[in-house]
Amino acid sequence: MTRLDENHLSSGERARVLVEALPYIKRFHGQKIVVKLGGVAIEQRKQETLLDIVLLRYVGMLPVLVHGGGAEITSMSDRLGLKAEFKRGLRVTDAQTMEVVKMVLTGKINPDLVASLNRLGGQAVGMSGEDGPSIIAEGHDADLGFVGRVTQVNAEPIDALINRGYIPVMASIGLGYDGHAYNINADTVAAELAVALGASKLILLTDVEGVKGPDGQVISELGRARAEAMIAGGQAEGGMIPKLEAAVRSLDAVPYAHIIDGRTPHALLLELFTEAGIGTMVTP
Amino acid sequence: MTRLDENHLSSGERARVLVEALPYIKRFHGQKIVVKLGGVAIEQRKQETLLDIVLLRYVGMLPVLVHGGGAEITSMSDRLGLKAEFKRGLRVTDAQTMEVVKMVLTGKINPDLVASLNRLGGQAVGMSGEDGPSIIAEGHDADLGFVGRVTQVNAEPIDALINRGYIPVMASIGLGYDGHAYNINADTVAAELAVALGASKLILLTDVEGVKGPDGQVISELGRARAEAMIAGGQAEGGMIPKLEAAVRSLDAVPYAHIIDGRTPHALLLELFTEAGIGTMVTP
Amino acid sequence: MTRLDENHLSSGERARVLVEALPYIKRFHGQKIVVKLGGVAIEQRKQETLLDIVLLRYVGMLPVLVHGGGAEITSMSDRLGLKAEFKRGLRVTDAQTMEVVKMVLTGKINPDLVASLNRLGGQAVGMSGEDGPSIIAEGHDADLGFVGRVTQVNAEPIDALINRGYIPVMASIGLGYDGHAYNINADTVAAELAVALGASKLILLTDVEGVKGPDGQVISELGRARAEAMIAGGQAEGGMIPKLEAAVRSLDAVPYAHIIDGRTPHALLLELFTEAGIGTMVTP
Amino acid sequence: MTRLDENHLSSGERARVLVEALPYIKRFHGQKIVVKLGGVAIEQRKQETLLDIVLLRYVGMLPVLVHGGGAEITSMSDRLGLKAEFKRGLRVTDAQTMEVVKMVLTGKINPDLVASLNRLGGQAVGMSGEDGPSIIAEGHDADLGFVGRVTQVNAEPIDALINRGYIPVMASIGLGYDGHAYNINADTVAAELAVALGASKLILLTDVEGVKGPDGQVISELGRARAEAMIAGGQAEGGMIPKLEAAVRSLDAVPYAHIIDGRTPHALLLELFTEAGIGTMVTP
Amino acid sequence: MTRLDENHLSSGERARVLVEALPYIKRFHGQKIVVKLGGVAIEQRKQETLLDIVLLRYVGMLPVLVHGGGAEITSMSDRLGLKAEFKRGLRVTDAQTMEVVKMVLTGKINPDLVASLNRLGGQAVGMSGEDGPSIIAEGHDADLGFVGRVTQVNAEPIDALINRGYIPVMASIGLGYDGHAYNINADTVAAELAVALGASKLILLTDVEGVKGPDGQVISELGRARAEAMIAGGQAEGGMIPKLEAAVRSLDAVPYAHIIDGRTPHALLLELFTEAGIGTMVTP
Amino acid sequence: MTRLDENHLSSGERARVLVEALPYIKRFHGQKIVVKLGGVAIEQRKQETLLDIVLLRYVGMLPVLVHGGGAEITSMSDRLGLKAEFKRGLRVTDAQTMEVVKMVLTGKINPDLVASLNRLGGQAVGMSGEDGPSIIAEGHDADLGFVGRVTQVNAEPIDALINRGYIPVMASIGLGYDGHAYNINADTVAAELAVALGASKLILLTDVEGVKGPDGQVISELGRARAEAMIAGGQAEGGMIPKLEAAVRSLDAVPYAHIIDGRTPHALLLELFTEAGIGTMVTP
Repeated sequence: MTRLDENHLSSGERARVLVEALPYIKRFHGQKIVVKLGGVAIEQRKQETLLDIVLLRYVGMLPVLVHGGGAEITSMSDRLGLKAEFKRGLRVTDAQTMEVVKMVLTGKINPDLVASLNRLGGQAVGMSGEDGPSIIAEGHDADLGFVGRVTQVNAEPIDALINRGYIPVMASIGLGYDGHAYNINADTVAAELAVALGASKLILLTDVEGVKGPDGQVISELGRARAEAMIAGGQAEGGMIPKLEAAVRSLDAVPYAHIIDGRTPHALLLELFTEAGIGTMVTP
Repeated sequence: MTRLDENHLSSGERARVLVEALPYIKRFHGQKIVVKLGGVAIEQRKQETLLDIVLLRYVGMLPVLVHGGGAEITSMSDRLGLKAEFKRGLRVTDAQTMEVVKMVLTGKINPDLVASLNRLGGQAVGMSGEDGPSIIAEGHDADLGFVGRVTQVNAEPIDALINRGYIPVMASIGLGYDGHAYNINADTVAAELAVALGASKLILLTDVEGVKGPDGQVISELGRARAEAMIAGGQAEGGMIPKLEAAVRSLDAVPYAHIIDGRTPHALLLELFTEAGIGTMVTP
Repeated sequence: MTRLDENHLSSGERARVLVEALPYIKRFHGQKIVVKLGGVAIEQRKQETLLDIVLLRYVGMLPVLVHGGGAEITSMSDRLGLKAEFKRGLRVTDAQTMEVVKMVLTGKINPDLVASLNRLGGQAVGMSGEDGPSIIAEGHDADLGFVGRVTQVNAEPIDALINRGYIPVMASIGLGYDGHAYNINADTVAAELAVALGASKLILLTDVEGVKGPDGQVISELGRARAEAMIAGGQAEGGMIPKLEAAVRSLDAVPYAHIIDGRTPHALLLELFTEAGIGTMVTP
Repeated sequence: MTRLDENHLSSGERARVLVEALPYIKRFHGQKIVVKLGGVAIEQRKQETLLDIVLLRYVGMLPVLVHGGGAEITSMSDRLGLKAEFKRGLRVTDAQTMEVVKMVLTGKINPDLVASLNRLGGQAVGMSGEDGPSIIAEGHDADLGFVGRVTQVNAEPIDALINRGYIPVMASIGLGYDGHAYNINADTVAAELAVALGASKLILLTDVEGVKGPDGQVISELGRARAEAMIAGGQAEGGMIPKLEAAVRSLDAVPYAHIIDGRTPHALLLELFTEAGIGTMVTP
Repeated sequence: MTRLDENHLSSGERARVLVEALPYIKRFHGQKIVVKLGGVAIEQRKQETLLDIVLLRYVGMLPVLVHGGGAEITSMSDRLGLKAEFKRGLRVTDAQTMEVVKMVLTGKINPDLVASLNRLGGQAVGMSGEDGPSIIAEGHDADLGFVGRVTQVNAEPIDALINRGYIPVMASIGLGYDGHAYNINADTVAAELAVALGASKLILLTDVEGVKGPDGQVISELGRARAEAMIAGGQAEGGMIPKLEAAVRSLDAVPYAHIIDGRTPHALLLELFTEAGIGTMVTP
Repeated sequence: MTRLDENHLSSGERARVLVEALPYIKRFHGQKIVVKLGGVAIEQRKQETLLDIVLLRYVGMLPVLVHGGGAEITSMSDRLGLKAEFKRGLRVTDAQTMEVVKMVLTGKINPDLVASLNRLGGQAVGMSGEDGPSIIAEGHDADLGFVGRVTQVNAEPIDALINRGYIPVMASIGLGYDGHAYNINADTVAAELAVALGASKLILLTDVEGVKGPDGQVISELGRARAEAMIAGGQAEGGMIPKLEAAVRSLDAVPYAHIIDGRTPHALLLELFTEAGIGTMVTP
């Protein structure tokens, strides 16, 4: 562990941070935490975020990462001369595009995250839902092609790796009974994995401060009923809807779901080990 | 298991095949068998080869697959407008080309093999050497870029999957201490894995009948010394050299290495479960 | 394993036999199979039958053998000057005759089977129902003396031997609560053992091709109801009745019972590992 | 346990017997004790001797019984009209006689002991050296036929039964590499079993008070060297020689061998649980 | 074990004591036995009583000791100049007195018992109810101060020591939820421990022969209903009441409670291992 | 866990404390840490010190406490009218005084520490070296009476409690082979326990800032050789000598020994989980 810059805290201040953190560290020992990486957390804060993940594993938590990768898919599709088409905000994914999705997620973003975690001292193993297979999917709209939703999760191969000390990193792709691969929203995959693994927390790292109320303030704690009302009533803005849906879905089995700001350095540590927490906690 | 065509064998003939096969089935029960897939075996005989792999797992063997994928890398490089350059018969692999290698091997060929095995009733999990990391590599010639050789194998994550009943499928990529991915010859990767896993057999599926002697006849059993002489003395033709080198390397820890004809239907079953075997067996 | 005679099969033919057999080998791995030996199987086909038993153990099945021994009992009784008396087709078994039964079954046939299995590479241990005691019996007709039926099976000592890798060979004798040994029909003992052990199959090796229908043809698959009707309606000929009764009894817990022709060489292998099977399968 | 006759002991006397016995009971807990039954112990004191065996098992010892059966073999041979022939005091055992030996030991005496132990609340399982095979033998004099000596003991099947709570009862027959059964002296078998099982004691129940010195007094404790001198020097009388040889042989691995008087009621309990002991203890 | 004086018993007499004792030794093997030490047993018969305890552990029983210590508390209070006050026969225990109770029980009597057991070859570990905490208590009468009753038992730390082979010795002190230590009647603690540990017997060693009936004779076997009637009806004399209450309480989970005479040498061995037993057995 | 006062730290400052602490928390997970309590740490900082101990256990460390108690022994001796005598700075400990030592350490200080830990949410079990016995001692100077040194440590009973999740609290008393209890210096007991338990750290909490050099500054890191020189050369002041001796002794098996200032609040947390540490670290 390289030495950090001097931070001018008194021993009393340091002691108080530790006295506050230790009970949380105990509470989560041996617990599975599913973290969805996205946006800034995966781009500009990548080193800090992945260091946090490695530290979580150090103190006995069992983190599982999930990622998608929209921007890089678009860029590679362009290079290969595939014309992008969107319907209802979703990319129409024909067979050729799906091939690109697999190559980018499984063949580029996933191994890059894995290699970075390994360099930071973690032991990561990349997977997609086709491995095992661990995520069974089906198409949800005929005109969107290979865009799918999760129908079943097989946690066994993921658990096998967790139990041997590895950090699984999962690309958001599922295998259909028809033998085709499907592209699935990564928030959804994270929620389904959290349920199937019996995780203690689902944490979605986003590019906003949290879920905001009508007054523009971040809501610290959001009950399931109110979250469902926000989805149904249209108060939730575009990109927040699948996140709220994922959070609500996970509550079927997971005690807490968190939507937090991936732009804050070490957002994960602050959420998990300080009393205040950050962002929005969605509760049953 | 779908019904096979009627095969007109008498019960006596069937009994004899079984009486011959059963001792081999026992001998290999719980043994690891590393199989390098390549050429015809991965293209035209893919279904039969993968069915054999699934059947091996059925009767208690522990198969591990390794694959490369030269042809598809070339084709994808072309589509992305990368100019191919070769030195001493090896592809010069700059950073951009390496990105293509990863996408094709880890993001395309590997998940396709995994999905096919899963459809045939196996339970496969794809990996590359960056996962774990399981294969540590280094470059071997500065002017070839990210072409590497294996310096260390970490069998732990592979064993974790084997022990839980999965068939690992490994793409021939390694992770360097410099944080870069390296492209490695798949025969070599297979040999190093066989050694690190304590495999009972290394089987290289090729597009030829086996190793041939000066008389053009396939050599059934080839001692290590003679194999080394064939490499050193130049009697081995081009493509056969890395295979012979891999076979010889594996003999440091593996009792038998086989170079067999992937064009023969069910070549693996015939090699493993009949007294005659097929192709060339390299022995210590 | 000694080399077998050349059998002139093409590699394609061999491959097909294996592709067909492997799923069965997997299905029965770790499963208990109770085999009743009798007639020709124990006399002229003894070597082939016992070799099959050893091979079953090799590939992970758990065979249990049961035997009686009518003919040798008669011969030894004659030598000792005991007068044979029969009622309703059953031997009247007084104390002296019972002593002969024990000596012949436990002291002659059983150790001979055990020694033969051991010579063929199996590891067999002989038992009678008095050991443990594993078979509790009672007399069923006062005027028949020590002819008994099974009232209870204690599978524990048999399981102890199976779990350590041994092939139990059981003589069809039980211990009564009155402290006397009883002579029991071996088909019945095999059925009761199959139930108590949770076997996956009961196989009765006989001297006929199988159960025959009114047209004289062997019935491949015979439902329980029809088998019961054949017993009740008298269509089953003399020696077949106890076999059908044993098969029907075993179906209380065992999925399949087989009445097959012990005169066919390697009848057990053909029944277990080929799609067609041989003889009659009795199903629930 | 049925109530015993009143025995008029004061509570102080009872307490002293117990205070003396308990350390021995502890010392032998979980220890294997090989007991050779013979003569009076197997005939007139059978109930008391077998009750002692069951009680030993009750308090956590692991008794193993060995028996021969010379007198009954002679009687059955006579009934079958076989002419007995002796050379150097040993019965010439041709194939027909060996068949009788097996029938009497394995098919009569052994199951009778097993059934009696079972009735007294023990759980006994009968074996001969052919089972497993557990005793490998070879002939020792060509003109004696199938009279053999032990060349190897395989304790595995015996241990399997002991570990599951059973009392093994072993008939003194071995299996030769030539596939033939051999008749072996039961004292020898007991000594070899004691060594192979790592027993804590070998106890030979005889029809005399113990080993006697020149003064006609029983020797309480007999060192190995003196025992060997008695054999070599001819001071040991006929029947005592094989017993002394067995005792000496067992000392290669067993701490104590005892030659005690089977005519004393409950001789085993008195030997094991009282300070004085009875008979002769042979020590390394 | 030091040699005991010669006790002039015949081998037949010794054998009968053993034949009678062994089934009891078996029955109690691995069973927990809670013994309350008090009065003479802890003073004049201490060596014999503790030797019995060590012997019980030797033969596989799991004894647990409980003790109080009224007389020594009084003596130490006097030395420290504390004035004793009694109400309804119970010592008024203020904070200063409670400090003395802890010092005497935990700091004097308990380590003395522990050291004696250790010297006799046992392995003892002393505890009070504050350790763990294993005994949760509350005050039962405001004017008695820190005199308490048991509200809950946590058997875990006691079991941890038993399982590693130790003899726990428990001082009759409990910890209140208010953080105060409470002095509890040792008979009561023994009964509650016996229930919480799932003991097979509770044995209270007293200074009388047992529970006596109206005729002044010791009652050998006393049913629960009659015991309750004796408490309610006032037939039980002063010191016997808490013992009878403890015995009755233990019957909620323990099969037998015994009130026996600690003045008889080796009273425990006689109670446990002879058919007659001694003192009074209270039964459900 | 009760809420702490607001401490006005930014999230960045909190994150830095955690990023620094987590690797230490991992490093010590499952490691045994022996802590000697004394002076201020046991008097004025008792709550903070014991809270730290409980928190260490929470995050997976295995703390073991050792304590003496000189001041209270003196005070109780005075109350009981025992005249104190000192030789060479050590209390002459006759039998009566030793009784007081046991009562105060085992019957007062020890249960008070245990009860406090239990109230703070730990699970503590008190012991002295007589329990097990875990500490074997002998007198070291005839004229000092029952003042002893450690001759042997039996870690088994302590390990039994640690493995079941308890915090052992050990009073510094040992049991002699002569059956007497001995009073031992608590620093020494802590060092011997640390060696016997295979602890990762020995921490001595004192009333000074650490070991000071000739310049009056605390020495942060002190090599074994220099520590030995300070003892031999007389540079170490009175009370520091036994602490330095204990630290040096522990280095035979323990990687680090720490002499730290028990007056600093949460001194243990700061020592263990911050990069700077506090006080003096003695290294091999």
